[in-house]
Amino acid sequence: MDTSIVTGVTVEDIRFRFGRDGSGSDAANPQTDYSNPYVRIETDAGVGVGVGFTLGRGNEMVCEAVRELAPIVVGRDVDEMVAGFASLWRELANPFQSRWIGPASGPYYMGAGALANAIFDLWAKRRGRPLWQALSALSPDEIVAMLDFRYVEHVLTINEAREILAKGVADRSKRITRLKEDGLPCYHTTWIGSSVDDLLNEIESVRAARGVSAFKLKIGRELEHDRMRLKAVREHFGDQIDVLVDANQVWSVPQAIEWMRSLAEFAITWIEEPTAPDLIDGHAQIRSALKESGIHVVTGENCPNSHVAAQLIAGGAVDRFQIDACRVIGPPEVILIMLVAAKYGVAICPHAGGSGLDELVPHLAAFNEVCIASGNPDVIVEQVGFCRDYFPFPSVVSDGRVHMPSEPGYIVDMKPETRAQFAYPDGPAWTEAG
Amino acid sequence: MDTSIVTGVTVEDIRFRFGRDGSGSDAANPQTDYSNPYVRIETDAGVGVGVGFTLGRGNEMVCEAVRELAPIVVGRDVDEMVAGFASLWRELANPFQSRWIGPASGPYYMGAGALANAIFDLWAKRRGRPLWQALSALSPDEIVAMLDFRYVEHVLTINEAREILAKGVADRSKRITRLKEDGLPCYHTTWIGSSVDDLLNEIESVRAARGVSAFKLKIGRELEHDRMRLKAVREHFGDQIDVLVDANQVWSVPQAIEWMRSLAEFAITWIEEPTAPDLIDGHAQIRSALKESGIHVVTGENCPNSHVAAQLIAGGAVDRFQIDACRVIGPPEVILIMLVAAKYGVAICPHAGGSGLDELVPHLAAFNEVCIASGNPDVIVEQVGFCRDYFPFPSVVSDGRVHMPSEPGYIVDMKPETRAQFAYPDGPAWTEAG
Repeated sequence: MDTSIVTGVTVEDIRFRFGRDGSGSDAANPQTDYSNPYVRIETDAGVGVGVGFTLGRGNEMVCEAVRELAPIVVGRDVDEMVAGFASLWRELANPFQSRWIGPASGPYYMGAGALANAIFDLWAKRRGRPLWQALSALSPDEIVAMLDFRYVEHVLTINEAREILAKGVADRSKRITRLKEDGLPCYHTTWIGSSVDDLLNEIESVRAARGVSAFKLKIGRELEHDRMRLKAVREHFGDQIDVLVDANQVWSVPQAIEWMRSLAEFAITWIEEPTAPDLIDGHAQIRSALKESGIHVVTGENCPNSHVAAQLIAGGAVDRFQIDACRVIGPPEVILIMLVAAKYGVAICPHAGGSGLDELVPHLAAFNEVCIASGNPDVIVEQVGFCRDYFPFPSVVSDGRVHMPSEPGYIVDMKPETRAQFAYPDGPAWTEAG
Repeated sequence: MDTSIVTGVTVEDIRFRFGRDGSGSDAANPQTDYSNPYVRIETDAGVGVGVGFTLGRGNEMVCEAVRELAPIVVGRDVDEMVAGFASLWRELANPFQSRWIGPASGPYYMGAGALANAIFDLWAKRRGRPLWQALSALSPDEIVAMLDFRYVEHVLTINEAREILAKGVADRSKRITRLKEDGLPCYHTTWIGSSVDDLLNEIESVRAARGVSAFKLKIGRELEHDRMRLKAVREHFGDQIDVLVDANQVWSVPQAIEWMRSLAEFAITWIEEPTAPDLIDGHAQIRSALKESGIHVVTGENCPNSHVAAQLIAGGAVDRFQIDACRVIGPPEVILIMLVAAKYGVAICPHAGGSGLDELVPHLAAFNEVCIASGNPDVIVEQVGFCRDYFPFPSVVSDGRVHMPSEPGYIVDMKPETRAQFAYPDGPAWTEAG
């Protein structure tokens, strides 16, 4: 293969301007405008695209961080960067001076993630495969060479990681075939701002159109409001659907326990983000208190990095972990989390819904299924499809399952007209009266 | 008292341009330029000044965050904001949309901290007292009303906090008198980039000039280099000084244990930041492994928020905790950490050294001593004096103790000529060849 030296990096601040109708709303975030730092790495062998993800304000900071980090990758070969990603990761995670603004979180970390996603997009495109299959063609040693174990070594050693990966090698091709046929189960997310009628209609229509039978409700603003909505859902759908709930971090630990106990009668599958995402002891207490009610405790979309994730998983704080494609630094840091989860038997349930996330996470879930932890019945992938029109290759859901991506790359390329329309602050979507 | 309505907020990006001689260097940060987002809140009753603190790059992000958060405080009364700070804290900690970029860490959180520091500066100035004394005049109920317990309630209840505060009320004035006379013990920090001769000379001269007898060495780049320097220090000074070491997060947990065991012969008081600042289980393992060697484990300057601090303290992960005046949202969030530390008997040893930090932390340490946890023999305050020329009221150290501030406010006002000189990127310090 010829070389693929990075000759330039560009980043665009793309913000989808939502109406103020409750789209994207939850207990912590009354109004959002899903946004992406949209990163293109240019090489003599083609272009790679990667995104970060934010809720609007602050997106410019992640863009600024990408610009500041770009010199780390310019002049370097994409294939070499991927092969030795552990060392690139360490550079991206520890930027000169600005490391202090994190560390291991915030705009620089997310900017590094967007940059890494672009690198892996091009790397997979060069192999003519979707990312999940390109990664699944690597040996355990090649995968381990991409991972920095420094802050998780006390929870997962390099040898343990290698053993977990080695176990799955024999069955990889069988699993790939099965995934291509069956995809993975997925659920749909609704918003706190919608009325009961809208909520029931939305569930009904997603069931009919996509065969989805698991639905997430945002809760946590007011207990009686939550009860009323859950009651309406259970009365309308009986036990034909699974109900997941999400409090977006608004509770203290004792409040989370009390609130969820009083909702237990509605047969809830999981409570997501009951409290602060980096509260390991708190999640462990909530999980222990809710065990008898059968409600799982899950978190992850705001988990800043792999070592906080590792503590949540190894510390018995979560029943399932929600990986995120944009909060940590590229697929390898997600793989590190998935390996820790495999060791502790914790299922991987990716966070999605935001612009581009629906498209990215099936790759990660698929790699986990093929190479790390096959057949865990608790696995379920978030898929909302809310931003599908902005992507030429949107994720596809049917019969309640998300299909595996087949286009080469880690595809989040946006249509040029979309990027022009939603460019912030000068695109027509932002200059025209809203 | 008349009102003090905020009429405007300004923020300046101040960066002290250091030579590349190793000043401010450590194992994680080879070159720094201590910097401050310099915040002024203007009211009809005077001006309050607050700073954040960074290492240079990224300072503009914290400034940007302050500008974005400013509308939260404009039009509101300073005294009312302080009296009900728990609710203001919650607004500042959860900014619209940009909360996602944190949460509870990063530029928005630090920006909120700088803004809060300015509010408390003016509040104390209006009372004609240095902040530590103005805070020490509040009742336990008034103090508790400033604190948001949401994410620490499972570790420290409101009633427990009130009881801790109530216990100290009777002796407050006696303690204030004693602190005014004696100050608090302090230590000096050296840099990893200095030669052995420079290191010995620096220790010698700080001992002679300021009577300091505890010194921190930066370690963690190379074991033999660390041994050589520690050996030189012990040979030169014998047991006349206490030696503290700081690895600035460069180790994994097993590596930290091994490295520190091999340095134990040098009679080390503490190891600071052995690993990632949010690695609670990791610090607990290191602390447990080093117990027999008598080396304390400390961290905190990169601890993103009070609930991670509470986990480190309650989880038995640290022997002492290093509060920071700029990383969390104002004095109340630091007070929350100090209350948790008091419950668990963990000493408070403030982080300082950076521009403005030497001046801010004596207020916090003094309040802790007066109102929360008096007489803990492990308390020691960092004081470097490296940036003292930039402040009209620099902290004062003599006989190895830092004096208590006596000027009204939470004083970090910089001289106008300093702000002009180091304004980034257009001040003479940055436009002239360096």
